[in-house]
Amino acid sequence: MQEQFGKLKELVAEVADINHSIALLGWDQQVFMPPGGAEERGHMMGTLGKIAHEKFTSDEMGKLLADLKGHLPEFDRDSETYRIISVTARDYEKSTCVPSEFIAEQAQVVSMAQQAWMEARAKSDFSIFRPHLEKVVELSRRYVTFFLPTAHPYDILLDNFEPGMKTAEVKAIFEGLRPQQVELIRAISQRPQVEDAFMHLAYDEKTMWDFSVEVATAYGYDWKRGRQDPTTHPFCQNFGPDDVRITSRWVPELPFALLFGTMHETGHALYEQGVSHTWSRTALESGASLGIHESQSRMWENLVGRSRAFWEHFYPRLQERFKTQLGNVSLDQFYRGINKVQPSYVRVEADEATYNLHIMLRLELEIAMLEGSVAVKDLPEIWNAKMQDYLGVVPPNDAKGVLQDIHWSGGMLGYFSTYALGNLISVQLWEKFKSVNPELDNQLRKGDFSSLLSWLRGEIHQYGRKYEPQELVERVTGSRIDPAPYVGYLKNKYSEIYGL
Amino acid sequence: MQEQFGKLKELVAEVADINHSIALLGWDQQVFMPPGGAEERGHMMGTLGKIAHEKFTSDEMGKLLADLKGHLPEFDRDSETYRIISVTARDYEKSTCVPSEFIAEQAQVVSMAQQAWMEARAKSDFSIFRPHLEKVVELSRRYVTFFLPTAHPYDILLDNFEPGMKTAEVKAIFEGLRPQQVELIRAISQRPQVEDAFMHLAYDEKTMWDFSVEVATAYGYDWKRGRQDPTTHPFCQNFGPDDVRITSRWVPELPFALLFGTMHETGHALYEQGVSHTWSRTALESGASLGIHESQSRMWENLVGRSRAFWEHFYPRLQERFKTQLGNVSLDQFYRGINKVQPSYVRVEADEATYNLHIMLRLELEIAMLEGSVAVKDLPEIWNAKMQDYLGVVPPNDAKGVLQDIHWSGGMLGYFSTYALGNLISVQLWEKFKSVNPELDNQLRKGDFSSLLSWLRGEIHQYGRKYEPQELVERVTGSRIDPAPYVGYLKNKYSEIYGL
Repeated sequence: MQEQFGKLKELVAEVADINHSIALLGWDQQVFMPPGGAEERGHMMGTLGKIAHEKFTSDEMGKLLADLKGHLPEFDRDSETYRIISVTARDYEKSTCVPSEFIAEQAQVVSMAQQAWMEARAKSDFSIFRPHLEKVVELSRRYVTFFLPTAHPYDILLDNFEPGMKTAEVKAIFEGLRPQQVELIRAISQRPQVEDAFMHLAYDEKTMWDFSVEVATAYGYDWKRGRQDPTTHPFCQNFGPDDVRITSRWVPELPFALLFGTMHETGHALYEQGVSHTWSRTALESGASLGIHESQSRMWENLVGRSRAFWEHFYPRLQERFKTQLGNVSLDQFYRGINKVQPSYVRVEADEATYNLHIMLRLELEIAMLEGSVAVKDLPEIWNAKMQDYLGVVPPNDAKGVLQDIHWSGGMLGYFSTYALGNLISVQLWEKFKSVNPELDNQLRKGDFSSLLSWLRGEIHQYGRKYEPQELVERVTGSRIDPAPYVGYLKNKYSEIYGL
Repeated sequence: MQEQFGKLKELVAEVADINHSIALLGWDQQVFMPPGGAEERGHMMGTLGKIAHEKFTSDEMGKLLADLKGHLPEFDRDSETYRIISVTARDYEKSTCVPSEFIAEQAQVVSMAQQAWMEARAKSDFSIFRPHLEKVVELSRRYVTFFLPTAHPYDILLDNFEPGMKTAEVKAIFEGLRPQQVELIRAISQRPQVEDAFMHLAYDEKTMWDFSVEVATAYGYDWKRGRQDPTTHPFCQNFGPDDVRITSRWVPELPFALLFGTMHETGHALYEQGVSHTWSRTALESGASLGIHESQSRMWENLVGRSRAFWEHFYPRLQERFKTQLGNVSLDQFYRGINKVQPSYVRVEADEATYNLHIMLRLELEIAMLEGSVAVKDLPEIWNAKMQDYLGVVPPNDAKGVLQDIHWSGGMLGYFSTYALGNLISVQLWEKFKSVNPELDNQLRKGDFSSLLSWLRGEIHQYGRKYEPQELVERVTGSRIDPAPYVGYLKNKYSEIYGL
């Protein structure tokens, strides 16, 4: 058995190496590749992807896993061996369920859909994207038939991004949450708006970049195992825990997007830099799920980076760098400005109070499309109606409405709810940490993030994919994912800012 | 047969994709990788290298090639099909001759040898490197036994870098060349030295970088299919013809190294950007040999970049950028300064007149080590004696002598002569082009490189590896590699500069 386990680890390590290589090809493509390189880059990624899939779904892998699963009862459920075998077996079963012809067909549909989506968004013309989205939905409906039936077919899509999470659970969470968030933003809208003109002045890019580096460094990002580069869309990409790179973006009209983007991606990066080497080059080597990942990025972006305590330390430093723009803006004005609530059309620009409503809308539409209760052709109309219901605003065109996100064109149905779950989990973890470390606010006021980071490392990061998200949240906080702390946090924060 | 040929191309294309991926991993490692990434990068490169080797030496590939070789007589020797099959078969035979245990052993020896060499060079202590170099030589002696006997065992090593080239040919070329180069530098040493103090002043890095970009652009480097980044050692790396990247380095004490480094690497890059798409993702997709490659880099660095005609156009532009340093330096002084001849210890800093002598010394020692007529332990002494003979200088220590190059520690015996061959070929091509385009000097004086580039594209670049180096040189110039034009060029150039 030890020999078989060794052989399994060896095979999986090779697959991990290939996947890390694909990740580097992707990183380079987004950060440094000259435009001429695109076609050959597609070939390179296609070939490596095919080899990784073949290796991971090989008969040899199947036999090893079948044998090793027979030995699972000999091991403690919490042991490394048990988890490596069971998580790898689960991944293997998911990978082998889907016929390779389907994967090839999907790749083709998605490639066309992404082209069409770009054109449709540029022209704000949903009819260009519609036939492609219909194919994507049809593929998703076929995709779920490859798996054993679940309580809801959407469970299968969700599981790809949030292992173990069920549609019913997410719906229940969101249904409890939605009226409270809707109510909160209605209350806010009746109060005088905060002043944030200082956020729309001209700022120097290099100075803002350097400040973002200062913050990432203070958070504990290890530059010997990472780097930050400018890109169009901020992201975090890693090749094992010792090379975890982030990017951020400079938009002159939104000068603070660079800073909050860096905070967000640093949150992802701190997670990956903190995964134990025990899991390196195994199936458990990275974050537990997109939701848990987002809990880390949102925590460092919002719970830390948009808190008053954080800025008590950092605001004088920022003012020093931007005397012209911020010299006459008080800490209190600044704090209110960066926390302005304003229902808007575009998810990625949404504030903390409205963000989850954008997600709920998408989740409801995805489930309805999969069930067949909403037809793709009716999507723009329903989108706009829900925007009116939840946020009280209706996008002026489809580019700022139903066409704004890339996810559906990439075939990624099942993805969106992880963003909102991450917000909820971030506050659950935060409250838990404050209960064991009542000094947190004082530490933030000193720019000291070490006890927060070391707690996250010990409770979350080190485990990689050892635990499923709900299991992990329950281990750390004592309860499963729960919207109550998040609602409490929002009410508290915005009552103070808007005098509710 | 068409089906088999199609299958062959498909398999080779996958190997090419993997090799391009390995090349990108290597590029990233040298340009952007944070230090923490080194260990996992080793795993990634090892796994991809193993897969590429397995795929290329697979039984399927062997059977396809055996069958297809049977069809070769049906094709014209100059046809695409003939060349693709024959070059691939040749590569396959070379790859399958060597047992994989040997490759693994070599990888281990080389890995240790490189570590030891770094330490030895840092401490200038040959005894640290000696046992490792002994192993490297022993491996090279074993390596040649895997192949059918050749006129000289060194032929087998040479063939890895300069396909088809024979030891006897290189020796004959170098033996005719050496006394003439030795004589030339003795004559120069008796003349008053040129003044080059302006080359050792303080220059601004960014301004020099921008000027190097201007020159690369003028040469015809396509930035949509490339980029330039700073590194410790300049190099050119490509992933097909549409993503060809160069690097250069900034050494404050040698401010012009950046510019001439860029010119050199641009020469390599123009070659790779010019290879026809016909050969993309086949075994013929890149340059014909290291020697032919070096003929391109040295041509753009020296024959163009150190010519008076080039600087008639560019010197006013350079002066404009560096008024303080160059305002009082005439074009003539500048031209002499950048062409100063001065025997020195270190190959990579050598001028055009002395460079080849460094190479000849190394070739003689490699052949002698392989034959067993020189023992590794005696290397430092023999090195210094030859330096005295050929260049009239003796390095003050082994770091600046026998330990200066990385090549032997990497197991790369057989490599060095390609540098000198490149110099010879560059002038052969140059003379040929001048004979069909007598306007070359006038074009250079206008900063117009388009007819030179388009001639190189048509005669050399487009063919990739279709022709072996000697075959290619003969096709273009009418004769095989010949040192006479190079000697004539040196004598001409330096007679004028030094008034011989």
